[in-house]
Amino acid sequence: MPGTPPTRFVYLGPEGTFAEQALNSLPAAERGSRTPARSVPEALESVRAGEADAALVPLENSIGGAVGVTLDELAEGEPLVITREVILPVEFVLAARPGTALPHVRSVAAHPQASTQCRGWLRTHLPDAVVVDVLSNGAAAAGAAAGEYDAAICAPIGAGRHRLDVLADKIADHPDAVTRFALVSRPGPPPPPTGDDVTSLAVYIAHDRVGALLSVLMELAVRGVNMSRIESRPTGEALGRYVFFLDCAGHVADVRLGEALQGLRRVCADVRFLGSYPRQRFPGAGDRPIPAPAGLSDADYADAAAWLARLRAGDLN
Amino acid sequence: MPGTPPTRFVYLGPEGTFAEQALNSLPAAERGSRTPARSVPEALESVRAGEADAALVPLENSIGGAVGVTLDELAEGEPLVITREVILPVEFVLAARPGTALPHVRSVAAHPQASTQCRGWLRTHLPDAVVVDVLSNGAAAAGAAAGEYDAAICAPIGAGRHRLDVLADKIADHPDAVTRFALVSRPGPPPPPTGDDVTSLAVYIAHDRVGALLSVLMELAVRGVNMSRIESRPTGEALGRYVFFLDCAGHVADVRLGEALQGLRRVCADVRFLGSYPRQRFPGAGDRPIPAPAGLSDADYADAAAWLARLRAGDLN
Amino acid sequence: MPGTPPTRFVYLGPEGTFAEQALNSLPAAERGSRTPARSVPEALESVRAGEADAALVPLENSIGGAVGVTLDELAEGEPLVITREVILPVEFVLAARPGTALPHVRSVAAHPQASTQCRGWLRTHLPDAVVVDVLSNGAAAAGAAAGEYDAAICAPIGAGRHRLDVLADKIADHPDAVTRFALVSRPGPPPPPTGDDVTSLAVYIAHDRVGALLSVLMELAVRGVNMSRIESRPTGEALGRYVFFLDCAGHVADVRLGEALQGLRRVCADVRFLGSYPRQRFPGAGDRPIPAPAGLSDADYADAAAWLARLRAGDLN
Amino acid sequence: MPGTPPTRFVYLGPEGTFAEQALNSLPAAERGSRTPARSVPEALESVRAGEADAALVPLENSIGGAVGVTLDELAEGEPLVITREVILPVEFVLAARPGTALPHVRSVAAHPQASTQCRGWLRTHLPDAVVVDVLSNGAAAAGAAAGEYDAAICAPIGAGRHRLDVLADKIADHPDAVTRFALVSRPGPPPPPTGDDVTSLAVYIAHDRVGALLSVLMELAVRGVNMSRIESRPTGEALGRYVFFLDCAGHVADVRLGEALQGLRRVCADVRFLGSYPRQRFPGAGDRPIPAPAGLSDADYADAAAWLARLRAGDLN
Repeated sequence: MPGTPPTRFVYLGPEGTFAEQALNSLPAAERGSRTPARSVPEALESVRAGEADAALVPLENSIGGAVGVTLDELAEGEPLVITREVILPVEFVLAARPGTALPHVRSVAAHPQASTQCRGWLRTHLPDAVVVDVLSNGAAAAGAAAGEYDAAICAPIGAGRHRLDVLADKIADHPDAVTRFALVSRPGPPPPPTGDDVTSLAVYIAHDRVGALLSVLMELAVRGVNMSRIESRPTGEALGRYVFFLDCAGHVADVRLGEALQGLRRVCADVRFLGSYPRQRFPGAGDRPIPAPAGLSDADYADAAAWLARLRAGDLN
Repeated sequence: MPGTPPTRFVYLGPEGTFAEQALNSLPAAERGSRTPARSVPEALESVRAGEADAALVPLENSIGGAVGVTLDELAEGEPLVITREVILPVEFVLAARPGTALPHVRSVAAHPQASTQCRGWLRTHLPDAVVVDVLSNGAAAAGAAAGEYDAAICAPIGAGRHRLDVLADKIADHPDAVTRFALVSRPGPPPPPTGDDVTSLAVYIAHDRVGALLSVLMELAVRGVNMSRIESRPTGEALGRYVFFLDCAGHVADVRLGEALQGLRRVCADVRFLGSYPRQRFPGAGDRPIPAPAGLSDADYADAAAWLARLRAGDLN
Repeated sequence: MPGTPPTRFVYLGPEGTFAEQALNSLPAAERGSRTPARSVPEALESVRAGEADAALVPLENSIGGAVGVTLDELAEGEPLVITREVILPVEFVLAARPGTALPHVRSVAAHPQASTQCRGWLRTHLPDAVVVDVLSNGAAAAGAAAGEYDAAICAPIGAGRHRLDVLADKIADHPDAVTRFALVSRPGPPPPPTGDDVTSLAVYIAHDRVGALLSVLMELAVRGVNMSRIESRPTGEALGRYVFFLDCAGHVADVRLGEALQGLRRVCADVRFLGSYPRQRFPGAGDRPIPAPAGLSDADYADAAAWLARLRAGDLN
Repeated sequence: MPGTPPTRFVYLGPEGTFAEQALNSLPAAERGSRTPARSVPEALESVRAGEADAALVPLENSIGGAVGVTLDELAEGEPLVITREVILPVEFVLAARPGTALPHVRSVAAHPQASTQCRGWLRTHLPDAVVVDVLSNGAAAAGAAAGEYDAAICAPIGAGRHRLDVLADKIADHPDAVTRFALVSRPGPPPPPTGDDVTSLAVYIAHDRVGALLSVLMELAVRGVNMSRIESRPTGEALGRYVFFLDCAGHVADVRLGEALQGLRRVCADVRFLGSYPRQRFPGAGDRPIPAPAGLSDADYADAAAWLARLRAGDLN
């Protein structure tokens, strides 16, 4: 029911990965049920089908980029909206069964993206170990626990869940790497504006790339709406046909953003609204609110609206 | 009183010029008083002071360009608004006292702008005549009537008023030349939209010319608002400081134009509204309404507003 | 002959006006012949015909705006180029025959633009005097000298030439008003770049005003070329068809301006080059050179050209 | 040695995947050595180290989007250039050991991206089969050949190499899906222009997303350079910092593109040139050359350059 806080949560599984860790950081989730899903489509499908109230899925990673499957699932099918973002530092650990010493590690299980992010550390500390690709961080930890590999690259939560010892922590080459997750629900009134919000959109544009994308950016620029993110994804029709995923500063309830959204609706082939929600400021990420440019503050908007109302009434003083 | 039709008219004199002819074309003026003013500032001052209800003054000429003094007077002082435009073909005649034959014309009185517009005709038909500069078309006719000059270049109305014979008509080199006049009143609610209206503005921009003027044009372009005219005038402060006079297609009551006006208000140093009024289509001027670009019709605006209202209510279907 | 300094000068007459005063400020003119012309077209025609080497004509006035006839004459007919600008403070004086005292002045001869610029002074000091319109500042001085009027508003040079006493000087309401003149010659290689130059252009654009003018400004903005002036003039074809006169910072020999000029040539219906010449900085006019925006300095241009050359040669380091 | 055709090729392995199939379509590769690499970084590293002359790696897939690891590897480290693109239809087959009939298939090995692309077919034809994730299309075929799974989703070349029977071909849900590969070499002079070329770039922009990306697009739009692709990737520094990968129509040797490249160099934080190479037109992909906009053809460029040369020489006729 719209307005009712969610109590049944799903997240991208398996257990013991970053998605579970991110979900646990939400107070509401602590009091609800938390079920792992086999894939992002499965997680979102259970929300669409009403079997869950909200799904926590990854949106992007500061190293690996957008999580394409999440974007594609949000852009197609029954509409869903993001009501919350969770930004989590990526903290990889090297974990092994109790009693294993680092010099004895000969094989390391890792999801390819994880081993890529720890390449420097592996070269230095385990130059001779064989890295074996597995399908998730959770599978890596499980494999190490089962004795299939000497060690695993995984999330701290994965080490704990599989009763592994942490041989080394913070082994990622970029210590500031983060993953951004979205809490996704069925449509309903968005959370109220906080003054520091994000609005996510999927924007479809016509063929001529430069001109059409210029138009999109102008609709935003003219209203002083800043983008914190733009991702392009092929639409699945042919090479060279794209949908753009935009994160804009502001809330759908803001005058400024409302005007820009109407502009996008008019000039784009299609626009799908993916939610307005509070921006999570992440300490140390260097991501601070950007003040509105001159003439584009909320006060300027209010002044201009009042002026227009006077003009229309014939009052020019 | 706002809403009351004007009954006391002034116009740029003297009598017998194009301005009087333009005023006479207005049905309302036929029933009111019509007083010549010595200058545009004097005409507008009498409206500001409440001594007249409306003033008919020239705005621009298709040959000579903007009438600077009118623009300057509208841009400064107590606000006034244009409620009507009158476009008049420029039809110069060569007029002389009865009995004068063309071959005997040795001197021609003319306002410099009038003789400039008839240069080709004079070269062909009166190559040896001396052209004497006078201060108005009316003064030229008066001088010819008084016998100071053999003939005058003047408006048809001037020939009639001074009982001169027309030796040749339509002597202007550009047969399609027109003058555009404005009927100016004290502020009040604008005439209702007709679907083919003009909105006139005086727009002040900051120093960096390219960037600031680009911003103005983008505010219009993004809303699909077309300009039929742009004139720059120095502000009287220093060379290189300008006010721009814009005529935009549309009415202040239109959603599209209202949004653009608010944008201009925000990005410009100052914007003065000079009126919304029906466009006078002039047969043969090649000036037809331009349809709104794709995505910028009134229906597109209504659709986008309805969509935004649904989004804000949480209805995404 | 191109390259030969001009020796035969014409200027907009009559004698004793600001144009003569401006011409006298040029060292080269002191050694040459100086002939007044009856009108701007006549002055420019004598250069086109080879009867004079250069003409000094007014371009714009900080109060009255562009001098339309000069712009029109430059934009049409055989090409001419501006090789020099002269900026002159507008210093009006009230002059009268020796022996006249201010309290006895009952009639003042003045060109309408001159009396407009001195309106405030006249209201304060001669509230009861009759102002009589005449056709030039020189004619005003001549009329006062002939005893037709008690006094004249004219240029200092006009008072001297007609042996009038100056009853009051600097009587213009805007003490910083200036007039800008151009020295115009037949085409030839432009004067060498000085690092602080102006390039004047007449640019014809197609019908859709907003889009076409946006294109023009983008060609300039993308190359960091600033405009110090933009004037629109009707083309004489119909209302709503314009030519724009632009003054751009830079010299036709500059890489940056050359690239922008080529861009204008491609996107405009027509572009007429009106000359590159040193900017005259006028003390107190608040008009200082504007530094190139980030990334658009000459050094940035040179760096980018060298980089492109390396790319084309296959050198990517 | 620059200019020498490559003879030692690497490709993204394992054997029997689309990359090998794409490499085999190049005549030059048939005569050279062809070695599979374990990963894209390994393939490119062997080119950088001089152990191979060229690497064939995937750039993007019309369903799955950009191949992030390839873009990242091209954007960082020692420069490499694309000299050729290969576009291959994605034709998945269901393959099994000889003698297996479709109704008996209970388990299907597939790379997750492959099973995603065949979801519809699987739902219809094998609703009860278990899909097992494996790490590559080649591994799926190998697993089926080894009897670990009843069948595999793989490329036609993979079925052949592992002596599997094709139970069903063209099972992908999007029959027009294609993958685009790049042939990558050490820097050298680019292949000569063909008139239908692509230039790939990695463009780094500063923080303010809307304004900076607008600048990039304007540099292209003003020169009439069209984009066929834009991808954003995080730079690995923090969320919200991006590098954009652009494919532009044209060749670095073209005047138009050269001017745009210089503009990007000036306004962007950094630009990395990734190669100019012939565009491969793919039948049925609906991807035809887009003619240059009015005023931006090569002839227009040549005309403008000649005009500027005349202006600089003082020739205005």
